[in-house]
Amino acid sequence: MSNRSAMPTRIVAGTAHPALAAAVAAALGVRPVPCDVERFPDGELRPTVHGVQGGDVYVVQPTGPAVNDHLVELLLLLDACRRGGAEIVTAVVPYFGYARQDRRDRAGQAVGARVALDALASAGADRLVVVEPHAVALEAMCPVPVEMLTAVPILADELADLTPETAVLVAPDLGAVKPAEHYARLLRRPVAVVRKTRVSGERVHAEELVGDVEGRPAVIVDDMISTGGTIEAAVRVLLDHGASPDITVAAAHGPLVPAARDRLGRLPIRCLLVTDTLPVGEARAARLRVRSVGPLIADAIGRLHNGQSLDTLLVRG
Amino acid sequence: MSNRSAMPTRIVAGTAHPALAAAVAAALGVRPVPCDVERFPDGELRPTVHGVQGGDVYVVQPTGPAVNDHLVELLLLLDACRRGGAEIVTAVVPYFGYARQDRRDRAGQAVGARVALDALASAGADRLVVVEPHAVALEAMCPVPVEMLTAVPILADELADLTPETAVLVAPDLGAVKPAEHYARLLRRPVAVVRKTRVSGERVHAEELVGDVEGRPAVIVDDMISTGGTIEAAVRVLLDHGASPDITVAAAHGPLVPAARDRLGRLPIRCLLVTDTLPVGEARAARLRVRSVGPLIADAIGRLHNGQSLDTLLVRG
Amino acid sequence: MSNRSAMPTRIVAGTAHPALAAAVAAALGVRPVPCDVERFPDGELRPTVHGVQGGDVYVVQPTGPAVNDHLVELLLLLDACRRGGAEIVTAVVPYFGYARQDRRDRAGQAVGARVALDALASAGADRLVVVEPHAVALEAMCPVPVEMLTAVPILADELADLTPETAVLVAPDLGAVKPAEHYARLLRRPVAVVRKTRVSGERVHAEELVGDVEGRPAVIVDDMISTGGTIEAAVRVLLDHGASPDITVAAAHGPLVPAARDRLGRLPIRCLLVTDTLPVGEARAARLRVRSVGPLIADAIGRLHNGQSLDTLLVRG
Amino acid sequence: MSNRSAMPTRIVAGTAHPALAAAVAAALGVRPVPCDVERFPDGELRPTVHGVQGGDVYVVQPTGPAVNDHLVELLLLLDACRRGGAEIVTAVVPYFGYARQDRRDRAGQAVGARVALDALASAGADRLVVVEPHAVALEAMCPVPVEMLTAVPILADELADLTPETAVLVAPDLGAVKPAEHYARLLRRPVAVVRKTRVSGERVHAEELVGDVEGRPAVIVDDMISTGGTIEAAVRVLLDHGASPDITVAAAHGPLVPAARDRLGRLPIRCLLVTDTLPVGEARAARLRVRSVGPLIADAIGRLHNGQSLDTLLVRG
Amino acid sequence: MSNRSAMPTRIVAGTAHPALAAAVAAALGVRPVPCDVERFPDGELRPTVHGVQGGDVYVVQPTGPAVNDHLVELLLLLDACRRGGAEIVTAVVPYFGYARQDRRDRAGQAVGARVALDALASAGADRLVVVEPHAVALEAMCPVPVEMLTAVPILADELADLTPETAVLVAPDLGAVKPAEHYARLLRRPVAVVRKTRVSGERVHAEELVGDVEGRPAVIVDDMISTGGTIEAAVRVLLDHGASPDITVAAAHGPLVPAARDRLGRLPIRCLLVTDTLPVGEARAARLRVRSVGPLIADAIGRLHNGQSLDTLLVRG
Amino acid sequence: MSNRSAMPTRIVAGTAHPALAAAVAAALGVRPVPCDVERFPDGELRPTVHGVQGGDVYVVQPTGPAVNDHLVELLLLLDACRRGGAEIVTAVVPYFGYARQDRRDRAGQAVGARVALDALASAGADRLVVVEPHAVALEAMCPVPVEMLTAVPILADELADLTPETAVLVAPDLGAVKPAEHYARLLRRPVAVVRKTRVSGERVHAEELVGDVEGRPAVIVDDMISTGGTIEAAVRVLLDHGASPDITVAAAHGPLVPAARDRLGRLPIRCLLVTDTLPVGEARAARLRVRSVGPLIADAIGRLHNGQSLDTLLVRG
Repeated sequence: MSNRSAMPTRIVAGTAHPALAAAVAAALGVRPVPCDVERFPDGELRPTVHGVQGGDVYVVQPTGPAVNDHLVELLLLLDACRRGGAEIVTAVVPYFGYARQDRRDRAGQAVGARVALDALASAGADRLVVVEPHAVALEAMCPVPVEMLTAVPILADELADLTPETAVLVAPDLGAVKPAEHYARLLRRPVAVVRKTRVSGERVHAEELVGDVEGRPAVIVDDMISTGGTIEAAVRVLLDHGASPDITVAAAHGPLVPAARDRLGRLPIRCLLVTDTLPVGEARAARLRVRSVGPLIADAIGRLHNGQSLDTLLVRG
Repeated sequence: MSNRSAMPTRIVAGTAHPALAAAVAAALGVRPVPCDVERFPDGELRPTVHGVQGGDVYVVQPTGPAVNDHLVELLLLLDACRRGGAEIVTAVVPYFGYARQDRRDRAGQAVGARVALDALASAGADRLVVVEPHAVALEAMCPVPVEMLTAVPILADELADLTPETAVLVAPDLGAVKPAEHYARLLRRPVAVVRKTRVSGERVHAEELVGDVEGRPAVIVDDMISTGGTIEAAVRVLLDHGASPDITVAAAHGPLVPAARDRLGRLPIRCLLVTDTLPVGEARAARLRVRSVGPLIADAIGRLHNGQSLDTLLVRG
Repeated sequence: MSNRSAMPTRIVAGTAHPALAAAVAAALGVRPVPCDVERFPDGELRPTVHGVQGGDVYVVQPTGPAVNDHLVELLLLLDACRRGGAEIVTAVVPYFGYARQDRRDRAGQAVGARVALDALASAGADRLVVVEPHAVALEAMCPVPVEMLTAVPILADELADLTPETAVLVAPDLGAVKPAEHYARLLRRPVAVVRKTRVSGERVHAEELVGDVEGRPAVIVDDMISTGGTIEAAVRVLLDHGASPDITVAAAHGPLVPAARDRLGRLPIRCLLVTDTLPVGEARAARLRVRSVGPLIADAIGRLHNGQSLDTLLVRG
Repeated sequence: MSNRSAMPTRIVAGTAHPALAAAVAAALGVRPVPCDVERFPDGELRPTVHGVQGGDVYVVQPTGPAVNDHLVELLLLLDACRRGGAEIVTAVVPYFGYARQDRRDRAGQAVGARVALDALASAGADRLVVVEPHAVALEAMCPVPVEMLTAVPILADELADLTPETAVLVAPDLGAVKPAEHYARLLRRPVAVVRKTRVSGERVHAEELVGDVEGRPAVIVDDMISTGGTIEAAVRVLLDHGASPDITVAAAHGPLVPAARDRLGRLPIRCLLVTDTLPVGEARAARLRVRSVGPLIADAIGRLHNGQSLDTLLVRG
Repeated sequence: MSNRSAMPTRIVAGTAHPALAAAVAAALGVRPVPCDVERFPDGELRPTVHGVQGGDVYVVQPTGPAVNDHLVELLLLLDACRRGGAEIVTAVVPYFGYARQDRRDRAGQAVGARVALDALASAGADRLVVVEPHAVALEAMCPVPVEMLTAVPILADELADLTPETAVLVAPDLGAVKPAEHYARLLRRPVAVVRKTRVSGERVHAEELVGDVEGRPAVIVDDMISTGGTIEAAVRVLLDHGASPDITVAAAHGPLVPAARDRLGRLPIRCLLVTDTLPVGEARAARLRVRSVGPLIADAIGRLHNGQSLDTLLVRG
Repeated sequence: MSNRSAMPTRIVAGTAHPALAAAVAAALGVRPVPCDVERFPDGELRPTVHGVQGGDVYVVQPTGPAVNDHLVELLLLLDACRRGGAEIVTAVVPYFGYARQDRRDRAGQAVGARVALDALASAGADRLVVVEPHAVALEAMCPVPVEMLTAVPILADELADLTPETAVLVAPDLGAVKPAEHYARLLRRPVAVVRKTRVSGERVHAEELVGDVEGRPAVIVDDMISTGGTIEAAVRVLLDHGASPDITVAAAHGPLVPAARDRLGRLPIRCLLVTDTLPVGEARAARLRVRSVGPLIADAIGRLHNGQSLDTLLVRG
């Protein structure tokens, strides 16, 4: 409807991750617009957003834990922007909760990813920007266009410094092979794969290792670290197969669950490398390294705003 | 699309209030269908609903605290029912959260009630049933038809026994005058009104009393007890105007906030009468009386199912 | 500066109130675009609108009597603008008919306000601007964003000159208390309230007066004067309670029904103050004073066009 | 047997043509459900419909003059039925106003037919039934399925008795040739065509006659008689070409405009044959003959209700 | 100046007619953006479009034979543009396939025109531009606005040179009379009409000729040449009525079916004049003359882009 | 018992695979309803469907080659059923074309799967039934509910007879591991995996084999055989790794491209086992075995019709 580059860029920071929103805004040379979210004693949220009238507005809000609070807050923020006269409203959801519910595993279930996407669209999102979604079909599920940014180059850049050339990239399950091969192309290193069968929510049963890791450092790469269970299983398999006890773990998102840090803390992991799609918290473990996706998101926003292609920033099949 | 009375009636109990769902089902002579809601460590919910294929399905889930969890769970339940082959899906939301956000009080806000209603409709609700909504315009806001059931006759029936004939009905603010007059017609008692100005979220500033309460017992009636602040202010005004320190409070919903009980516990309130649109909890105060809306909801479901008018059950202008 | 501001502002005047459209356009320094509405002998309307291609278009059409003709004409005008290439189409409906039908008072009724709003949105309105709607929940009912402008400051400004400092503001029923308090804040005068029970369409039964009016001039304030029945009842109650027979009536909209003037003409009303949200007609009674909402609407349009906040112009909860 | 047939058939009579609704209901062996339409002094309508819960509901309301009142009333009736719990709502609009506005004749116009159809669909119509629509593409314009019933067999049956075998069927303009050929097939009579150019709303300029009418009675057939101007012009051309001054006029709809009767009364027309898609009024001219479409509509409703094909009742290309 | 004019104009050429897209782009002084369409061995298409981000985009793709391939490719192109960040996407479909299926001729059929239009709108078209559509009600059928460009002035201009002043314009059936009269006004020549009854898909049964053609050259004008059957029948009728064997045929679209050329090649047709709404192919018969609609479409695009009226370019009543 | 079960079940056979539709109907004890599809010389399709009024209708049409013709025909069939009065319309698309386009692999592409699904929903499908879709997220992409039936048990049952117990199941790429494990669970045999990198449309580059196949018969399992390229590569890897030259290939869909048979004919494949989701053709190679999904689809339809769970028939995560 509109010539976007003539509008002012506006960054709205939800309460889920104001630091990231600030980083994005700083990279763009703007300030987040004034926004506060009132919390009533009974748990209802009431956001107020100022200064979006006539703007090209980006609402930055990952929907990690507490996922339902952050999701509903995002819906309210989108509605507030639309009613407040924003010309275009883009939901920037660096970590997209419910992405794992992309099908019914059993009869009687919902398709949570679709429910969340439909709600975003009906609340007023004109476009969605995510980072490394769990399901690459996310864009096909969404009623509005989606840009799926990749964090792999950012993490690979750090891994190039952090890990020796002899290191092997390890996909901890089959779903992680595609991103592992993306790392492999960038780092020119081999890939090994752990095949596992998921038994239940938190427990996994690792089965076998494809590829040679004997005596070599390993870099386990995945899209997210949730409970740490998948990583833990992969580490055991790697050690069983003679990998050197100098393991690095890299993931775009995580850790989602506080207990994951304890679980991983007991393992011979030298470094846990993640991005800041989710807030990392004050109590950073010494071994935790965080690279920011702020510049990546700012780059994407700048291109959307100025009508330039995002091609090189995107997750690819 | 369908001849409803030939379908089986199915009651789905969300986790917000299984006891009420069970009461509704019992009154209808059926059992809630099997439904469980998995909670992942990072807060995502995944419900599974069985046996709704081909059914006339009613999902019972008030969206009181924790309101966002209950709201998102409801969206997922509705989606699960639709995908699971339910012919008609009715959301039964005895207490409807976010109903108070029915307009923007200030520029920059959202209209939370509309956001919640749009999300329900897009997740698959064909119809909505609520009890004593805060805003009677709720039905005009909703993309699908709404039945707004009244709890006033149930509470009035109890008040007839609980309170002496000399008691005065008191609307604690102007918004409560309409329901107070509904009680008055049923109980044939006079109405007094407290005019107040709301100062902020939890504090209210009561101003004056319209009507004569001198030496008489008072029955404060409102649609919900949230923090107890409005009630507390009304009690003080009543006592200032000479009401006898034998006060009863009646409300369809509440108390929403645990602190409300403490606040009201310090006041000369003889009895706090509410319905079970929200779970009341184990630690019931001696003074708390609860009447169930289960039979009312069951009656409404039976009429919807059998193509009969709900007229006499509904909130009226 | 928004990109909307790069489009030309276009004012389209429907036949319901061309004088107001002209006033709005004049205040904006533009002319209404050429628009004529053909009326066929069988009652069908066919509007033609010129010059909206590429424009930021505002269609000015209150939907007062003949409400159905004006409503359908508005739908046709919106469709003509959309097809004619308008970039953004805003329906400016200073008086919004059917706003009182915001719920079903009895089973079997429609929700007329929602029907009218859905029709506007489906005919092509991107946004709606109204003045002092009967129901503040109007914005929650509408599929597109709504700006609800307040006429109270305009009328209060006039009342400051017209009425003595001893005057009491009178809300003729409970629904008018909120606006009465708005006047009271601006004029620093007390508020009295008439409580009534509506018996049927045209007859009302006034009951009691809250507040002291003895020997003082009264200013009855309401959102609209329809048949004059509510005002008549309030005047009688005021006189019964000793108010001085020097009464002023102020309302945003009215009078809607010609008979209202006769009815009010028989009462000791010194001045009837309204705005021009509806055409007032040639035969102005000497006692009728009209303040224009043209500048208010022009101000709102200018802000929408230039991406500025409308906050200070809006009705607030 | 379809399951729709297990629901009760309900006929709702709008105020546009209660007699036709009663005829339809009588032919189906049911009574119209109780329905009344309140008219407020300012022109707003408020219908109340009883007894539609769970029903297969047909709202009978032609949208002839006063077209806008009847159209808005129809929208309200549809909304009332949907909210009132009707399972399926079919709008039966024997004469469909605004059908002639099926395109923009000039830039800047609306497409009135589409506006009216979109409004019907958004107000709750699941299906539409019309009789002899002006534009056969009406069904392609409508968001919901449309059944277009033909009145030609009914009128042809009457013409077989009314007119001699030597009569020529005359299409008064090119748009009427298709229906004229339909009559011709049924009556086995020749067709002549008047070619005209429409000059403006009410005036037409007849040009030439194709076919031989010398000394023969003529039967002018058209879909509707609006102002009578087209008929008047055709009569003059026929007389100029030697047709015998014994002319019959047959049309599904009309006359729409009271002045049409006067205009046609001055011409040598022996009989004006129409159906009752619109109310004909008490003051029937001696020459006016009316055949009812009540049985036709009842037949269509019965087939829809029982899952039978309507094929033989429909207008065909 | 509209804000659309601040966006770059982008022409996307589908595979149906790249030459026309190139002509349009050339007339606008731009180049078609890079676009290629991969064809998989199993027939699926996968287009890639570059450089549309932030643009005012026009996808040029007539949906002539192979109609289904071209239609689905168009849907994919529209989706690619929308996802690729185009601000406005206009489908330019010079020949619109399925336009003849604008109603159900018999029970049990689809309304193909509506199916195609709904699919275009749901794939992302904001506006549609067509040339001489078979059904003028096309714009009323489409969920988004349509501009219907006329090719008659282009063809009439050529006919003025090609044909003698004594030539008669001939409408080969009643549906062609309106365009024939449009030619007649521009060329100031008389019109004759062939009345026919269509018997089946390819065969027609011509019946009679209205108008005098004896000894005169004839110009048959129609909107499209499909199989040539209608033209062949008209030629025979013309010759039977003494027209001179010097016949010209003019149509906006055609020939659609290769066999049509053979069929028409056997007739005394001096010249077959068409436009290039469809690709004409290399093997041009000597008698075939083609005028391009490229400048017409470019003119329309320029006006849409710059916020100017298209009035003089459009098909009218 | 659901009320859907009171409607007649109607099977509509599109032209893509009438034999399968007949098999489904036979298994249900009904006949496909009369349906014919007219093909115009210019490629447009016009289906006519009889006898669906009031029915629970299933349109059986796989969208294999010619995929665009079959897809558009399906849209027209759905529209015809909806307009023809079907109560519920289910699209049964055993092979779903465009499923592989479930994301943009490169900037500038479309998401073909979503385009096709949106078109189906907008043409009138209430539900979709597919067999072994390429992307399990298909149900999350579709605006209406989807049932994804699994063909693995049918093929595994045949493999149990066809292949020795020593056979190894081979996933020819990572995407096939999940179904391979499904076969493995049913047949209690080990799984080997070929890891490959796809180079371009038809060529693949097989890299390595995970698992032991030395001297053992292999059963390659995949969801579809398109060009045969993936299978060919897997066979070469297997032979390189010492598998016995007694190879079986099993896939739900295929072969899509005629050339695939020639390519596979040159390899030591003993048996090519597929289902009839696509027509297999007369010229069946001796080695081709076909098991029908007719009974599976009939079972699913029966359960949908009777309100029973499809759980055991579905693809699972």
